[in-house]
Amino acid sequence: MGKQLHHIDVQNQKDFRKIPINKVGVKGLEYPITVLDKANGVQHTSAIVNLFVDLPHEFKGTHMSRFIEVFNKHRKDLSMPHFLTMLKEVRTALHAETAYADIHFPYFIEKEAPVSHQKSIMRYECAFQGMVNTNKHNFIVSISIPVQTVCPCSKAISKYGAHNQRGIVTVSLHLGPFFWIEDIIGLVESCASSAVFTLLKRSDEKFVTETAYENPRFVEDLVREVYLKLEALKQFPEFTVEAENFESIHNHSAFAMVHYQAHKE
Amino acid sequence: MGKQLHHIDVQNQKDFRKIPINKVGVKGLEYPITVLDKANGVQHTSAIVNLFVDLPHEFKGTHMSRFIEVFNKHRKDLSMPHFLTMLKEVRTALHAETAYADIHFPYFIEKEAPVSHQKSIMRYECAFQGMVNTNKHNFIVSISIPVQTVCPCSKAISKYGAHNQRGIVTVSLHLGPFFWIEDIIGLVESCASSAVFTLLKRSDEKFVTETAYENPRFVEDLVREVYLKLEALKQFPEFTVEAENFESIHNHSAFAMVHYQAHKE
Amino acid sequence: MGKQLHHIDVQNQKDFRKIPINKVGVKGLEYPITVLDKANGVQHTSAIVNLFVDLPHEFKGTHMSRFIEVFNKHRKDLSMPHFLTMLKEVRTALHAETAYADIHFPYFIEKEAPVSHQKSIMRYECAFQGMVNTNKHNFIVSISIPVQTVCPCSKAISKYGAHNQRGIVTVSLHLGPFFWIEDIIGLVESCASSAVFTLLKRSDEKFVTETAYENPRFVEDLVREVYLKLEALKQFPEFTVEAENFESIHNHSAFAMVHYQAHKE
Amino acid sequence: MGKQLHHIDVQNQKDFRKIPINKVGVKGLEYPITVLDKANGVQHTSAIVNLFVDLPHEFKGTHMSRFIEVFNKHRKDLSMPHFLTMLKEVRTALHAETAYADIHFPYFIEKEAPVSHQKSIMRYECAFQGMVNTNKHNFIVSISIPVQTVCPCSKAISKYGAHNQRGIVTVSLHLGPFFWIEDIIGLVESCASSAVFTLLKRSDEKFVTETAYENPRFVEDLVREVYLKLEALKQFPEFTVEAENFESIHNHSAFAMVHYQAHKE
Repeated sequence: MGKQLHHIDVQNQKDFRKIPINKVGVKGLEYPITVLDKANGVQHTSAIVNLFVDLPHEFKGTHMSRFIEVFNKHRKDLSMPHFLTMLKEVRTALHAETAYADIHFPYFIEKEAPVSHQKSIMRYECAFQGMVNTNKHNFIVSISIPVQTVCPCSKAISKYGAHNQRGIVTVSLHLGPFFWIEDIIGLVESCASSAVFTLLKRSDEKFVTETAYENPRFVEDLVREVYLKLEALKQFPEFTVEAENFESIHNHSAFAMVHYQAHKE
Repeated sequence: MGKQLHHIDVQNQKDFRKIPINKVGVKGLEYPITVLDKANGVQHTSAIVNLFVDLPHEFKGTHMSRFIEVFNKHRKDLSMPHFLTMLKEVRTALHAETAYADIHFPYFIEKEAPVSHQKSIMRYECAFQGMVNTNKHNFIVSISIPVQTVCPCSKAISKYGAHNQRGIVTVSLHLGPFFWIEDIIGLVESCASSAVFTLLKRSDEKFVTETAYENPRFVEDLVREVYLKLEALKQFPEFTVEAENFESIHNHSAFAMVHYQAHKE
Repeated sequence: MGKQLHHIDVQNQKDFRKIPINKVGVKGLEYPITVLDKANGVQHTSAIVNLFVDLPHEFKGTHMSRFIEVFNKHRKDLSMPHFLTMLKEVRTALHAETAYADIHFPYFIEKEAPVSHQKSIMRYECAFQGMVNTNKHNFIVSISIPVQTVCPCSKAISKYGAHNQRGIVTVSLHLGPFFWIEDIIGLVESCASSAVFTLLKRSDEKFVTETAYENPRFVEDLVREVYLKLEALKQFPEFTVEAENFESIHNHSAFAMVHYQAHKE
Repeated sequence: MGKQLHHIDVQNQKDFRKIPINKVGVKGLEYPITVLDKANGVQHTSAIVNLFVDLPHEFKGTHMSRFIEVFNKHRKDLSMPHFLTMLKEVRTALHAETAYADIHFPYFIEKEAPVSHQKSIMRYECAFQGMVNTNKHNFIVSISIPVQTVCPCSKAISKYGAHNQRGIVTVSLHLGPFFWIEDIIGLVESCASSAVFTLLKRSDEKFVTETAYENPRFVEDLVREVYLKLEALKQFPEFTVEAENFESIHNHSAFAMVHYQAHKE
């Protein structure tokens, strides 16, 4: 008898509480994935994955294993062009109106030191976030870029020196046509006091120190500069830029955020 | 000469990029605070604090130290009724249109075991999130309540036993009149398979195990039950209920969310 | 019948695997505690608590609820002098040879800005770690102090400026006579390029920037300077000093550690 | 003149404080690495990396960039057999007596559900930790394996049901001959109430629930069972086994640890 028990489909039972559920699914799944890489074709990395659908009021539960089945099938191609394809299949497999996914993954890029040209690898935290329903979809790519910032106020008021620190700029871009993560990283680094690097020889350290001192930036400057350059691309209908400075003179952060939307009326 | 340098107010300089900043301020500040406590009058705890304002396009920077000055002044009374008072003062001190604050803090409550009645203390993560501008304000209180959930499917299909796990229910409540955090915690715990406790003797463990087995709940059930009880209070114009189960049979979570808004048309 | 079931003491049953357990207990308990405060007498904060005992090979399990009972009783006085008292009671209550405890808590101190003398509060992460058995005991106090460091190499090789960053110095002190956490924090801050502050007005920012630039420190310098000052106190039979710099030019940290033991032969 | 400044080697300057530094180097570096994979030959993953050396008292500082140069060169083969090769090269490149490394990385394995045999991927957190000096070296491999545990006490005292939860078993193995991470994972899972899985269909969930209920385990049982099986391999001169249960009836963990050393006298 026990053998037959697993044919009971509790999730499919009727629910009488008349409350549709906005999102239900799996959260915090860690999975190896493959994404596109400008220099190497593809990159193997791993993601933290959240997958949700909506659930009509008349069903008691969703079928959690199907999320995994679909994601497992697509994990070897989670490039931007295929991410929504995966998500559409989640929607179909779960018989849902709307499907949601967000994945967070480290993305690695080989980078040259500015003077010695020695190569090493930098890590950038990325995220894809999507929604698909019958009529529409959206897709947001987020990239977090560590940078150095020198404080303009500290430089202006001090006889010598200026406090500086590592900061993180996070851009969240509504697509728009395909773009390379590498290009956005370059754009953001050009707006900071200096880029940061994994490997710097002495000649590089001198260059980075002097360049940063010559280009002081508040978090306010940073988000405005990135805003201007992203807007000039005319490629993203909507985006946000956030900057967080891990202040070297405080034990907390300075933070700024700007939001852009094309043709706001 | 150096002595006079600090009179330069770089932040107050004119900015020509024509980009207003949505949010700028301090993030990740950790501060001791005092909040209201139903049983003891007040509770001393500590918070992670984010404070932001908007910045018109014509100013180069905000004045970060003023956020700290205002918060420091109000830290000994950050009860719900005074949280927006603090935030209004941030808005004034920074000459801003809009001010934003969110604080996250552990809140501790003494709780009795269900059979032995032995007392111990449980920790609940809370957050206050507010916005104030010229015409309007809003204030959201979030409370995260750990609970136990027994899986209805596992119970139905298995000869004996049923997988169960710790879960976290997070309710985010738009105020509305003042309420006690303690009462919401009780409401949420009554919707789970069982409450969880810091101290359980054997008689309590038996009670909790049997009660939970008699009350199996999916994450879907959990958010719907909490929704029904919160709606019945007719006290909150808007709220969300999230449930996350740290599944004992998986290495990831099951998740569900419902959103309520009064008079949705 | 079910009513009697909870008299079964499974933990007390005999175990035949002949494997004594080194540590068993509760981990990750979050609890409000009270510690001593130099300025205010006592300070209310909250701790993450781990409590363990050893378990002889012949017992199947320990009694987890007793750890909570003892800790709950002592939570209102977890000053250094009473921490081992609490731990001795854990040892007795669990009938163990050896008991271990470590608690981690934020400790808050009001601090004046260096020029404006404006007051605000700084947070320091602390830990107490103890062991008690029949013949001996030990007790280690750890304090983590955020500081600013200016890089001596960057300063020496650059035309102007010097990269600097927030760092954290963690000292772990074997007691020894009672001491004030406040005094150790002052000692460590005096070894850095500059202390860090929660609230700085412009005159303070100028002072901190210039002071830091005049006092460049590698992580190596930092741990050596703290070592010298701690050794000079002749108060601690053993200690370690760790420094971690959140490098402003890299996306990783620089780290150094020294260990001192009196009369090493 | 500025051009020549970077020939100043501050780190190489003489230090007069007479304090040798135990460990100095880079911490928190995140890097893509390649390790061995039993099923697929190699696996691409990414690690958090710490690399240290000791520094004699007469030198002011170490050369941080060399750590990166060496690690970057070896990142494509960080299999167990080559990890100490990399570390020996760190020691040589830094002219140090002793070099230390620890790396932490997720390791992914395809796993079949127990009844449906559907395949999905599980993540296991691993670490390599090594030390190399003139005369000796050591190498420890740690693997964290999520499992399910059913509480024997709860089962014994309750009319029906039993609380269960996800737990994590961490084994730290001193090498010893080469071994496959996959084999240790299998060994540990066989000691738990049940393994956990990423993808379970209803027939699998029934199987896992019933198997777990038939095999209740305290954290104490878990570490003892793993100890017995690891000892029986006669392969590791020293190891520790830790188990942490994320209790479903509490908001904290139960924890146990055993340590084995061959030929303890």
